[in-house]
Order: sequence, then C-alpha cells, then structure tokens
Amino acid sequence: MPWEVDLIYLPILQISKNEYNVRVKRLREEMGKRELGAFLVTNGVSIFYLSGFYHMATERPAALLIPLDGDLVFMGPLLEADHLKHQTEMIRDVRTYLDYPGTTHPIDLFADWIIQLGYGKAQIGTDNPAGAVGTYGYTGPPLNEKLPDAKFVKADEILWEMRLTKSPEELALIRESAKWGHLAHQFLQDYTAPGRWDADIALEATTEATAIMKKTLGPDYIPLSGNRCCSAGFRGQVGQKSAMPHSIAVERPLREGDVLVTGAGADVGGYNSELERTMILGSPTDRQKHYFDVMLKAQDAAIKAIKPGATCADVDKAANKVIHAAGLDELARHHTGHGIGLQGHEPPWLDQGNLLPLRPGMVVSIEPGIYRLGYAGFRHSDTLVVTEDGCEMVTYYPRDIESLTI
Amino acid sequence: MPWEVDLIYLPILQISKNEYNVRVKRLREEMGKRELGAFLVTNGVSIFYLSGFYHMATERPAALLIPLDGDLVFMGPLLEADHLKHQTEMIRDVRTYLDYPGTTHPIDLFADWIIQLGYGKAQIGTDNPAGAVGTYGYTGPPLNEKLPDAKFVKADEILWEMRLTKSPEELALIRESAKWGHLAHQFLQDYTAPGRWDADIALEATTEATAIMKKTLGPDYIPLSGNRCCSAGFRGQVGQKSAMPHSIAVERPLREGDVLVTGAGADVGGYNSELERTMILGSPTDRQKHYFDVMLKAQDAAIKAIKPGATCADVDKAANKVIHAAGLDELARHHTGHGIGLQGHEPPWLDQGNLLPLRPGMVVSIEPGIYRLGYAGFRHSDTLVVTEDGCEMVTYYPRDIESLTI
Repeated sequence: MPWEVDLIYLPILQISKNEYNVRVKRLREEMGKRELGAFLVTNGVSIFYLSGFYHMATERPAALLIPLDGDLVFMGPLLEADHLKHQTEMIRDVRTYLDYPGTTHPIDLFADWIIQLGYGKAQIGTDNPAGAVGTYGYTGPPLNEKLPDAKFVKADEILWEMRLTKSPEELALIRESAKWGHLAHQFLQDYTAPGRWDADIALEATTEATAIMKKTLGPDYIPLSGNRCCSAGFRGQVGQKSAMPHSIAVERPLREGDVLVTGAGADVGGYNSELERTMILGSPTDRQKHYFDVMLKAQDAAIKAIKPGATCADVDKAANKVIHAAGLDELARHHTGHGIGLQGHEPPWLDQGNLLPLRPGMVVSIEPGIYRLGYAGFRHSDTLVVTEDGCEMVTYYPRDIESLTI
Repeated sequence: MPWEVDLIYLPILQISKNEYNVRVKRLREEMGKRELGAFLVTNGVSIFYLSGFYHMATERPAALLIPLDGDLVFMGPLLEADHLKHQTEMIRDVRTYLDYPGTTHPIDLFADWIIQLGYGKAQIGTDNPAGAVGTYGYTGPPLNEKLPDAKFVKADEILWEMRLTKSPEELALIRESAKWGHLAHQFLQDYTAPGRWDADIALEATTEATAIMKKTLGPDYIPLSGNRCCSAGFRGQVGQKSAMPHSIAVERPLREGDVLVTGAGADVGGYNSELERTMILGSPTDRQKHYFDVMLKAQDAAIKAIKPGATCADVDKAANKVIHAAGLDELARHHTGHGIGLQGHEPPWLDQGNLLPLRPGMVVSIEPGIYRLGYAGFRHSDTLVVTEDGCEMVTYYPRDIESLTI
C-alpha cells in the first residue's frame, strides 16, 4: 500500500524503557572494564538518568545500587518508594527506612543491605563515597567508614561521559522543550510594558503558557519541575541590572529605555532547553544598538565555530574575538556556553580553558554576553546540537533587534 | 512628649547588618575554641547566612573565607561578584576568576589566594574539604590536595548549631513569610474547583498573591527565590495521589471526591514558612472524615508536646501514639516534622530517633500524615516556634474539615 512507511517509534514526552536499559548496559560495560562489582549512585539526577525514577532530594539519604548483573536496587526513604513503581519498571529491589535520622541511622541500613547483597567486600564505583548527598543539613558518617572491607572508587566521570552526547530520544525531548520555551517567551514579550513589575509579567506568561502546554500535550505529559511546565522571566536583569547576570531581583517596575535580558525554558521528560533574549523597551539608542550588534555578531561567530573536532575553547575564542575586535574585552563576564540536558548547566563547558573536542550529539547553549556595569547588559542564549557537519539550532526565536524592540 | 517610646528596630524584610556581625563573631568564637585560623564556607546558603550575599550555586566554585580576624574574603566567579556589593557590606575582599574551568583551574587560584592570605599552613575549618560544591557536573581536584601544608577540618556542625535556634530578626521574617503563604493558600482554595488542572490553579494563585505581596511590601522587598515571592500548589497530591507525598505530577484535572494535599510558603529575606492543608472537593465521606480526624488529632498531640526540654523524639512519639491508637500505624510514611528557616528542611528533625531537646527559638513544621495507598493521603503542616513555656503557631490557616471542604 502506498501509504505504508517504516514507523519509527520516537517518544515525545519521555525516555523509553529501551533507552534506560541501554544506559544501564553501557554503565555495566564501563564497570566491567574497571573491575567494579557494583556502582552506587547518590545524585538524584543521575538516579533519574539511569532508571527514570525521579525524586526530590532532601536530607533523607537515597541511592541506587547497580550491580554488575542482577536487579537494580533502590535504597531510600519510604515516602519516595511509593511512587517509584508508578514511574519506572527498571528498579525491582526496593529497600526503605521510615525516615531520617531514625532509630537506626539509614547509612547503617545501607551498609547492611550492601553486605546482604554480597558487595560488602567488593570494589564499588560511586559518585560519592560518603554514600548520601549532604543536602539540607544531613549529617552522618560516610558509608565507606561503615563498609571497611569494601573499596569505594569515585567514578562519576563514567556518568558524565555518558551524558555528554545526547541520543535521538534525548534530542527529541530537548526539541519539544524548545517549542514550549518559545511560547512562554512569546507571551513574556507580549506582556512586557512600561510600568509593569518583572515578576507579574513573568508569572502571567508562565501561567498562560503552562496551561496551554498541558492542554496541548495531554495527560501523558508529566513535568518533573513542579507546577511550571514551561516558564519565562527576567531573573533580575532589568535596566541597569541587565548588566548583572544572576542579579536576582529588581527594585522598580519596568520603564522606557530599559534593556531587558530574559530567560525561558520547558521541562519535557526531565529535559530542558535554554532560550534567552535581549529586549529593548522603547526605541533603541545608538549605544544600545552598538552593544546589541557586537553581542549578536559574537553569537553568530560562536555558532559558526561549532562542528565536530573543533574544541570547546575554539567556540569560546570565536565569540571572544568579536568582542575583542570591538574593544570591549573588559565587558565579558563569563564564557560562551555550557552543555544542557537534564540539568540547566552540565558539561561540556564552552570555555577557553577546555580543549575537549565537540562531538555530534552534544547539546550546548551559545550565549556570549557583554555587560557594562551601571549601564546595561546584552546576551542572547540559544540551544544547539552539534551535528555531523556543523550544528542545528534547536531554539528559533528571532534574534534581531527589530523583533526584540517593544 | 507622650508619644515618645523606645523605638526598637525590627527589620521586617531582611536581616540587619548588626546580626550578620553577631553571626560572624559567634563563628569566630567557635573557631578560636577549636584553634581554627580560618573557616572556608562553600555552601551557598551558609555563605548567605554569614554575609547576606546570595548567589546561584552552579558548577563554578565559590567560597567565603572567614579568617579569625580581618576582612571576609569571597572567592568566586566574576559574574557573581558584580552584584555582591549591591547586597552586602560584610565582604570587603573579593577575588574572582572569569569562568570555569578556565585556563587556570579555579581551585588552583583558591589555593594561591589562601596562601597569599597567610593560611597556607593553617588549620582551616570547612563545610567541605573539597573546597567547591560538586554541583552541575563540576569536576576538579579537591582543594585540600592543593594545600598539602594546610589542615582542613570538617566543622559544619558549628554552622548547623548556630542555625538551630532563630533570633528575633529571623522570627520576624518567618512570621512575615507566613502571612503571604496564607494569602497564596487562600487564593489556591478560592480557585480550586472540579474540572481544573492542579497546575493552572497553583500558578493562578501564585501569580495573584505574588503581585499583591510585591505591591504591599514595596521596592525594599527582594525575593531571593526568583519570580515567586509567595506560592501555593498541590505538588502532585491530588485524589489517589494525595497518598504519595512528593508524587510530583497529576494525570487528570481535579474532580468531585478528591482529597487534596496542598503546600504554600513565601520568601522573606531568604526565610520561609510552611503551610500545608488537606482539602476535600465535595462533601467528605465518613471514611475521609475518619482519616482527617485521626490526622488532625495527631497534629494536635504533637503541638501539645512541644516545649523546651521535651525531645524531638517526644514530639514524634506524641503524634505516632494517636495514629497507633487508631490502628493506622502502617499508614505512616514519614516523621512528624523538621526545622525550617533559610531552607525548606533543616535540623532539628522531629524524629523518633532524635533525642535532641527542644530549645526556645527553634522553628519547626508539625506535619504528621497518614497515607492509604490507592485511596488518599491526609496531612496538614504548620510552622511553629518553640517558646519559653510551649510554642507559638506561626501559621494560622484554619485546620478544621468544614473550613477545608470545597
């Protein structure tokens, strides 16, 4: 029949069970090479990466034990275990304690369980030899002290290496994320007006875009990041404070003449994208136009430098060259970009000190910025995938000053 | 003049400079006792606690060095240093690097700076001997390896002990937070209706309450937590999923008969409060009423148990006793509460295994819960201060089933 085609299953909203199996298999291959009998993962994002089980990391110790073969074992608080089975079929052995610190310290239970499982004298790879993430005021003895016959080897570089390039499924989620970040940003631009507070505009855009995203994607769409499925905002970069990335807060409503630096993204299956724009409220002055132009040319140069084999440093240097040629070296405040995926920032770092070569499947932000303290800051950020012969722009919001003037 | 009174300065929106000085003085006294020449703080919340400087912790190493005497020293990325001076006068020595990893690794710079400052052979207390928080894929050599002649001593228990009881200024901020959490929760309840999605209701309530909070408190109010000054939501605890704390997401809109477990709070000067309620959509069934009643009595019992000298375990046991008497032991999923202040969870833990005695000024959540998997969960959470002779309720939202039926 003429309409018969190969149907390729591309999950749009979450990573497939097959891919989780591939990830665990790959980790086990690396474990085999290093003679690790088991791998203990304590970082919540890494647990999600390997199993599809997402939980809120708190003071309560939690860990995923991956033996060289056999069932994956989750060890953690009872209240996280209940929804584990709703999220994943990857983990079949679940061991819990009621709460922290408990009448028996959870780390003592972890040690007992690891001995019961037969790894009390094993060489165990881990992201954290202490055995628990020391967040929220957790205190406790390190797990390695409780298992003197085991040998813990810090080996989280295996996981970072695995996460460094993205699979087709991961890319599909990041592309889907970019769409909804785009919508949130469009609402943000639509609602931006002199006299309004940054927080009001941001929350209005976030609320409206989130409602539409949820209605569009339907009940299978599960955001991991709480109520905000997608969001957009200013993060304090308004007016003079646009010159301070991470400036957090603004003391006055927006007004004519303000330079604004925005940010937008969306959570799709735990994956994110990054979209940031410099917007100008009112007709841009010549000085604003000049800085905007240098920033845009620096971003263009960095994008052109992306291709397999070029180093992360090459991309950073391409942007810096444009800023240097404009005589604005002293206005740089950070490097050109970073990896993005399950976390807002992750390797690779597009930094002049990083000689790592780019590889197809890496996903990075490209965001050179220039910041004149006491005046204004200028930065776009786009999300890109390194391809076989260059790169693909994942975000597609207009970058020119006319489109971004309000 | 008759209207002349003693004017006591009670900062409502942020901690005073005087209090930051008191905190640093107290830390230095403890350092003196332990013969520490300096203290290196890498946790972003602890840096804020000691200096009033808030920054977003990323892969870029940042630390605050507190010498036994002399200026406080911030070491970190250039882009965080720009707004440091807008936030605090406590830190006079600021040392920066452009970005991570850089052509010289920041940890090498940290080591050089510490040697220049005269602490290369000192005994240095720290919350983290690695010298940098390993977040977002940071990798790097631990700082202690770079300073072989210095002796690093993990001593974060000093900071946790300081944070364990709250000062009058801290209590004022937490009380102010409770007001705005209350407003956000009131909107959440107002907007809750069958057929609506949880995320829509949560974002609408959050947006409206935030706009009012910002207009009410004026330009001096600086939220540290991004756009949401105050917020309310369901965090996935809707219908059957109300039985799963931290269940994250919901696959359908709200409907008649749902049990809902909510959460609300507000950021005031970095401090928070916790308000959670069990709400019922439609007339409660007898079974819902029974579980609600047991939960409420357990909360009452825990509140009555709070007084100086009682242990954290005593409070947990008081709640558990009510749940046990109702024959519902197996429905418990967590302990009775936790400390709250700069972080959503912090010590003390109201846990049966914690024999720490309560002291005036401790601020805790009281939130015993019962959870019947496949049916529903029931939990209120209130924020309370331990006083000289009992406790003060900081949150004041109605707790009875009639007020919480929609």
